[in-house]
Amino acid sequence: MAPLTPRLVVPIDVKKKPWEQKVHLHNRWHPDIPPVADVTEGELFRVEMVDWTGGRVKDDDSADDIKFLDLTITHYLSGPFRVVDAEGVPASPGDLLAVEICNLGPLPGDEWGYTGIFERENGGGFLTDHFPSARKAIWYFEGIYAYSPQIPGVRFPGLTHPGIVGTAPSVELLNIWNERERKLTETGHESLKLCEVLHQRPLANLPTSKNCLLGKIEEGTAEWQKIANEAARTIPGRENGGNCDIKNLSRGSKVYLPVFVEGANLSTGDMHFSQGDGEVSFCGAIEMSGFLELKCEIIRGGMKEYLTPVGPTALHVNPIFEIGPVEPRFSEWLVFEGISVDESGKQHFLDASVAYKRAVLNAIEYLSRFGYSKEQVYLLLSCCPCEGRISGIVDAPNAVATLAIPTAIFDQDIRPKRLGHGPKLRRTPDVLRCTGDRHLPATQDQSGAVTP
Amino acid sequence: MAPLTPRLVVPIDVKKKPWEQKVHLHNRWHPDIPPVADVTEGELFRVEMVDWTGGRVKDDDSADDIKFLDLTITHYLSGPFRVVDAEGVPASPGDLLAVEICNLGPLPGDEWGYTGIFERENGGGFLTDHFPSARKAIWYFEGIYAYSPQIPGVRFPGLTHPGIVGTAPSVELLNIWNERERKLTETGHESLKLCEVLHQRPLANLPTSKNCLLGKIEEGTAEWQKIANEAARTIPGRENGGNCDIKNLSRGSKVYLPVFVEGANLSTGDMHFSQGDGEVSFCGAIEMSGFLELKCEIIRGGMKEYLTPVGPTALHVNPIFEIGPVEPRFSEWLVFEGISVDESGKQHFLDASVAYKRAVLNAIEYLSRFGYSKEQVYLLLSCCPCEGRISGIVDAPNAVATLAIPTAIFDQDIRPKRLGHGPKLRRTPDVLRCTGDRHLPATQDQSGAVTP
Amino acid sequence: MAPLTPRLVVPIDVKKKPWEQKVHLHNRWHPDIPPVADVTEGELFRVEMVDWTGGRVKDDDSADDIKFLDLTITHYLSGPFRVVDAEGVPASPGDLLAVEICNLGPLPGDEWGYTGIFERENGGGFLTDHFPSARKAIWYFEGIYAYSPQIPGVRFPGLTHPGIVGTAPSVELLNIWNERERKLTETGHESLKLCEVLHQRPLANLPTSKNCLLGKIEEGTAEWQKIANEAARTIPGRENGGNCDIKNLSRGSKVYLPVFVEGANLSTGDMHFSQGDGEVSFCGAIEMSGFLELKCEIIRGGMKEYLTPVGPTALHVNPIFEIGPVEPRFSEWLVFEGISVDESGKQHFLDASVAYKRAVLNAIEYLSRFGYSKEQVYLLLSCCPCEGRISGIVDAPNAVATLAIPTAIFDQDIRPKRLGHGPKLRRTPDVLRCTGDRHLPATQDQSGAVTP
Amino acid sequence: MAPLTPRLVVPIDVKKKPWEQKVHLHNRWHPDIPPVADVTEGELFRVEMVDWTGGRVKDDDSADDIKFLDLTITHYLSGPFRVVDAEGVPASPGDLLAVEICNLGPLPGDEWGYTGIFERENGGGFLTDHFPSARKAIWYFEGIYAYSPQIPGVRFPGLTHPGIVGTAPSVELLNIWNERERKLTETGHESLKLCEVLHQRPLANLPTSKNCLLGKIEEGTAEWQKIANEAARTIPGRENGGNCDIKNLSRGSKVYLPVFVEGANLSTGDMHFSQGDGEVSFCGAIEMSGFLELKCEIIRGGMKEYLTPVGPTALHVNPIFEIGPVEPRFSEWLVFEGISVDESGKQHFLDASVAYKRAVLNAIEYLSRFGYSKEQVYLLLSCCPCEGRISGIVDAPNAVATLAIPTAIFDQDIRPKRLGHGPKLRRTPDVLRCTGDRHLPATQDQSGAVTP
Repeated sequence: MAPLTPRLVVPIDVKKKPWEQKVHLHNRWHPDIPPVADVTEGELFRVEMVDWTGGRVKDDDSADDIKFLDLTITHYLSGPFRVVDAEGVPASPGDLLAVEICNLGPLPGDEWGYTGIFERENGGGFLTDHFPSARKAIWYFEGIYAYSPQIPGVRFPGLTHPGIVGTAPSVELLNIWNERERKLTETGHESLKLCEVLHQRPLANLPTSKNCLLGKIEEGTAEWQKIANEAARTIPGRENGGNCDIKNLSRGSKVYLPVFVEGANLSTGDMHFSQGDGEVSFCGAIEMSGFLELKCEIIRGGMKEYLTPVGPTALHVNPIFEIGPVEPRFSEWLVFEGISVDESGKQHFLDASVAYKRAVLNAIEYLSRFGYSKEQVYLLLSCCPCEGRISGIVDAPNAVATLAIPTAIFDQDIRPKRLGHGPKLRRTPDVLRCTGDRHLPATQDQSGAVTP
Repeated sequence: MAPLTPRLVVPIDVKKKPWEQKVHLHNRWHPDIPPVADVTEGELFRVEMVDWTGGRVKDDDSADDIKFLDLTITHYLSGPFRVVDAEGVPASPGDLLAVEICNLGPLPGDEWGYTGIFERENGGGFLTDHFPSARKAIWYFEGIYAYSPQIPGVRFPGLTHPGIVGTAPSVELLNIWNERERKLTETGHESLKLCEVLHQRPLANLPTSKNCLLGKIEEGTAEWQKIANEAARTIPGRENGGNCDIKNLSRGSKVYLPVFVEGANLSTGDMHFSQGDGEVSFCGAIEMSGFLELKCEIIRGGMKEYLTPVGPTALHVNPIFEIGPVEPRFSEWLVFEGISVDESGKQHFLDASVAYKRAVLNAIEYLSRFGYSKEQVYLLLSCCPCEGRISGIVDAPNAVATLAIPTAIFDQDIRPKRLGHGPKLRRTPDVLRCTGDRHLPATQDQSGAVTP
Repeated sequence: MAPLTPRLVVPIDVKKKPWEQKVHLHNRWHPDIPPVADVTEGELFRVEMVDWTGGRVKDDDSADDIKFLDLTITHYLSGPFRVVDAEGVPASPGDLLAVEICNLGPLPGDEWGYTGIFERENGGGFLTDHFPSARKAIWYFEGIYAYSPQIPGVRFPGLTHPGIVGTAPSVELLNIWNERERKLTETGHESLKLCEVLHQRPLANLPTSKNCLLGKIEEGTAEWQKIANEAARTIPGRENGGNCDIKNLSRGSKVYLPVFVEGANLSTGDMHFSQGDGEVSFCGAIEMSGFLELKCEIIRGGMKEYLTPVGPTALHVNPIFEIGPVEPRFSEWLVFEGISVDESGKQHFLDASVAYKRAVLNAIEYLSRFGYSKEQVYLLLSCCPCEGRISGIVDAPNAVATLAIPTAIFDQDIRPKRLGHGPKLRRTPDVLRCTGDRHLPATQDQSGAVTP
Repeated sequence: MAPLTPRLVVPIDVKKKPWEQKVHLHNRWHPDIPPVADVTEGELFRVEMVDWTGGRVKDDDSADDIKFLDLTITHYLSGPFRVVDAEGVPASPGDLLAVEICNLGPLPGDEWGYTGIFERENGGGFLTDHFPSARKAIWYFEGIYAYSPQIPGVRFPGLTHPGIVGTAPSVELLNIWNERERKLTETGHESLKLCEVLHQRPLANLPTSKNCLLGKIEEGTAEWQKIANEAARTIPGRENGGNCDIKNLSRGSKVYLPVFVEGANLSTGDMHFSQGDGEVSFCGAIEMSGFLELKCEIIRGGMKEYLTPVGPTALHVNPIFEIGPVEPRFSEWLVFEGISVDESGKQHFLDASVAYKRAVLNAIEYLSRFGYSKEQVYLLLSCCPCEGRISGIVDAPNAVATLAIPTAIFDQDIRPKRLGHGPKLRRTPDVLRCTGDRHLPATQDQSGAVTP
């Protein structure tokens, strides 16, 4: 007889604060954050998690919580888990840790989520220059489906996934991260490539002890202070996996993570009911609390065998993954294209980010003809199962990026038609705004000056 | 009774030169290139085309033809076609032209293709700094499948598509193109974003009369001279569609093109038996001659109804398309990830091109463990039906790009396994090299200096 | 704010007996079984259910429980539910009840199931003449996947579904059922078509008060006695849906059920983690307890609008359904074919049951070459997501049926190969047998006589 | 250099009669029909074929040609091909012949097809008792798509396949066929199982020299006479493959055929642009002329290794096949269900043919609510890519069969909806009738008596 149910290693009570949970959470990457549990190769275990903000965004009628969200608190992670083999020998640096996502979903009793646009001065997003004001949409789940009262006429099955899954960095890798990200913030504007309009956003988020949560290490102690000052923030994906926000990392998928510290120290969090490729509005997935059922395998020596570094050290590697067999199945897609010419008409050289920005803008403009506000579409493209592709990256000077949207998520036919059969519908209501919303003007140039 | 077979509007004899074909070809974009035929809305018509080089690359044992290819000759297009409705009224500027690709394939009797790496000093590619020397692989077709003697152990069904489909630009749009591309070549290095290692490639290819072919307009005449000096080169995709290299534009798909001149003046060319997202080696698809069976519909006023410009004029729009129902079906994918940290370890800011470059490098390194040379894998990823995704574009400072490869195209299991079950095979032969190949050293920095 | 979780209308405690559950269960179809709850159109509600036997089959080492199972107790159903619209008006006869299966799965803490072969003298199955002895396999779940210690080398994602979903019959419909099934048992052998070897099985299971459970109607009362004598058994699918055992009725699917009594009186049960088309071993799905999350819509007058009777009365209709979007995705299938010639070589006339029997036998023989016992394969084909097709039904005298098996469920390549690369593996252990197993001989002729 | 195009072994000129073709055709199965060509293992070769009737059905306005079609002429096959290995050694009895369908399609210049209902007294079909009169629909092809002027509002991509592919029987196998089919015709009514209403159709079609075509063997010779009297008719699928009418045997699929005679003697014919599972109207696929590109592999000793006989001799085996990767992709299906209760209300015992008949009738009734005549739907379900499934075959007394129809083939939403949103459209015109059509009454009972 096998155990009939997975072992629960991190239980979550969504009525409690992140720091009050029975098993300690953490919100930084550091080799010295102590494991909360051992898990054995082959064992099926269950991990529960809070939503990335730990419950700060509410199912209410205003986007104020999004607007004023303190981003130093992100993301609350469950773990780390120390992975050992059947003989109790932990995973070692140089191994590859295969993590199978056997199942996942929302927490029973908490079946809802939200998608937000961050305020320009607090986080921003891919299209901050076009959508500078905070907005929010609430999503309710009907089993595999999500719908939002704020974006009517749309319903889709979730391609649910954890935004974050990663192993702990070694000290050496952590130093590499902190070094290169510090350099970026120092060189500043020279590095600006994304349409040169996003300078108001922090280029990188360096270590800070503010709001730092380090598992069972008590805040204020010397140990806490040291780690908090060194620990990497969780926003970007990096060599250890981390916040990859890869929307296909869903049921039945398998991720092969490099192991940098003894035991691997696997952590996970930031569950998404669904996300579009790119997660364009930044708080762009359908964010929620949730659970994972995981199974680990240790491939001894697998880093050397399978991962060749691309960079100056042996640590410059990236995870690999396999896609699972139960992704939602769509057969009809409407595809929008963008080239690396920006909104001012300026030609960029093979810049896929610019091309994708234009593809997303084209999609927003198009869908807004079908009765939606542009903010509704921006949020929708952030969280629905749309696919962002790098279609051409060599035909100088234009990169070509495409955004493919499954037509079946709409309750109307969104394909182009002869006139008279064209767009007509009006959709109400709209996405949630902030109290005393002042409608920030769109940014127009690199200096941050705005149109009157 | 309906006609039992599509009307052939452009026949091709692959034994003849491009300029000797019965119906004149062209290799530039210009409003004054005269239509070769009228096609009527709803009519099914067949267009044949030469391969993009017009037969200059051969099924032989050397990559010399790739190495010395004169890029000013590209791409030979079939058309333009003047599209009229049932009453004979041509499509007008402001309309949307829906083109359905009812069928396509290689030309009977010419069922083969090639994939190449351009020399660093003559064209280059996405990974020129890593693969500076010209290489070639020949592909033979077995119906829907392609295989290459130079890349053994791989066979896959084609997601066949025309690399180029587009309408003629108006004078105004042509001027916009020439202007912005000229500016790019003038500002030069400041615009360099792609790992800052690709400066040896031309940033853009401005109009030139060299090798210019303009349909029935005779070379050397005043008219020819004028148009040749203005006409846009066909390398990049632009507002009119053009060389989008969108690999999913296959059987049963439909592209909605903006109409800029009376009659739309539709042209097409550059048939690909198969291509990977990005077409990374530049001459990266399986290039071939071929045929298309097309059907057009005119959506009157459709540009205004459906396409909102993103840019300073009403012409700054992009096509839309729908994917067809018979794409090859794969259910298992191995996915490689890249972040916007380059090979030197430098941190870039949300640069999807850098992230995709790293994902492709990761994939090449990985697959080369399974008995392949890196050149074999570089060519393979250029032309097999792999998917390039922009997975994360907001988690500063790292963009995350992914490259998904269908595992079924290999005759071995390419997934990571416990050691002892790992990579073993040795594959011979290798891709084709040039006569007196001198193995160019990989480029290391922006100055173009190479390692000794 | 929407409710954040579905309303639980039938809770199940798997440690209790079916008749001890908090909300009464039932195991017959009858219009007078009282509803256990009202559900409102559009409301998401959760129904839990016991496995079809109510816990009589155990996770142990013997097939004795299968062998001696009393089939008069089947199937324990949850419900009936009285469906009302937003105004409280119940569904009426002549309406169509659209039931969306928003989610489903095993009960937390009870994540296992079983598949059995019934003994020839107690239930039998599609291949009883070949497999007369009781057998059992236990399946454990790892999230979306199932594996069995008794059928090694196989693992597959579940296409989970309720075997039974149906509305209550009216008195008139109930009479039609009882009448036609009684006639069948009376005419007996004349109706035998299934290779004429299955006569030892009851042709139909007529009403019996033995083991009858009728919700809150107390056993032994006059009301109970009357209903028990009339109520239809739950084994066959009928006009009301019922035990259709349609394996694709999974997450996201929608079933349109005819309404025969006021309130519709919807019941459901017999959850399957997975099943193959045909459920050939009879106890052939992976049987388990589970939950459903459902949403109902009433289409007023929908029976008349959409369902034309095929038969002598307006009640001779069948449900319609739509398939959901998250079925497991397989792209490679090995397909076995059968024609309507039976094992003795006798030609039957366009008999799809005979053709399918032969296709299943061919598949069993084939797969048993890959290290499996035939019993293992018989159980596997009963419960894995294989597809049974009626490929040809007109080419007299041979019906052609096919059985398609997804190759990805095996850990070995099961396709035919040149010898030397062929089947080799030996698999142990085998499926579970009964205590003192006597290996019933296979049946050879219609008289039921067995070979010595 | 590989050959750039497949070798053409059977060219067809559709303007000529079947017996006038350059390479001789045949329309019977017999070991002594001489091969028309040798093909070598691994070689890609092209086979062209006439439509199954050899051009007797025309693209005109009447169903008369269907009504009076002489069924003794069917089916004209291309071949046989003698398959040899690289050393020239032919395939031998006991080998398995793997035939890959690398490509296929209509013949250029002949891109049309037809679907018919046979007259009750001349062929009939699965629903002859409901549709006794001859009807016809013409289909035109637009590349991968087919549409019919007689069935408006429907267009679908073809899942094109040869209805017939098979190896020659040995003398022993031929005798088995003739023996068992003769017995069937002799026992007659006792074997009638298909709703007992189809007795007017021949139960089997025994050998006849009428219209017999035997390749290059000259008609009227003694050899011809002998073979013609023994040779099996091509209507049913049998152990050698033959007229399996398996609709998924399309591009990229592979069929493993048993070899019964030296050289295998592979023949093929009866190309279908598309067919539904079951091919219910008998002349039910979109019948056309066409071409195949094939590649063979000989698996020496493969019959013994892989095919276990199910029957009294070692010859009682069936082919196996693998499905190809480019089938049309549909994600939404509407599914109709049938149980084994016939139209008179009579209960049958686990009869899948009866259940499927009811499922098809349900689908016809349903779709006829959407503006179609029942004849239109009957023809449509015969030829569109619908799936016929044996869903339940054990829940006595009801077999459950289902018919799944892809909703995307219609230009309207065919799902059930609340009234007011329901079926409305009227479709004209209708399918083609016969000259002086007399509207045969539907058959009502086994005696063949018809309603007045």
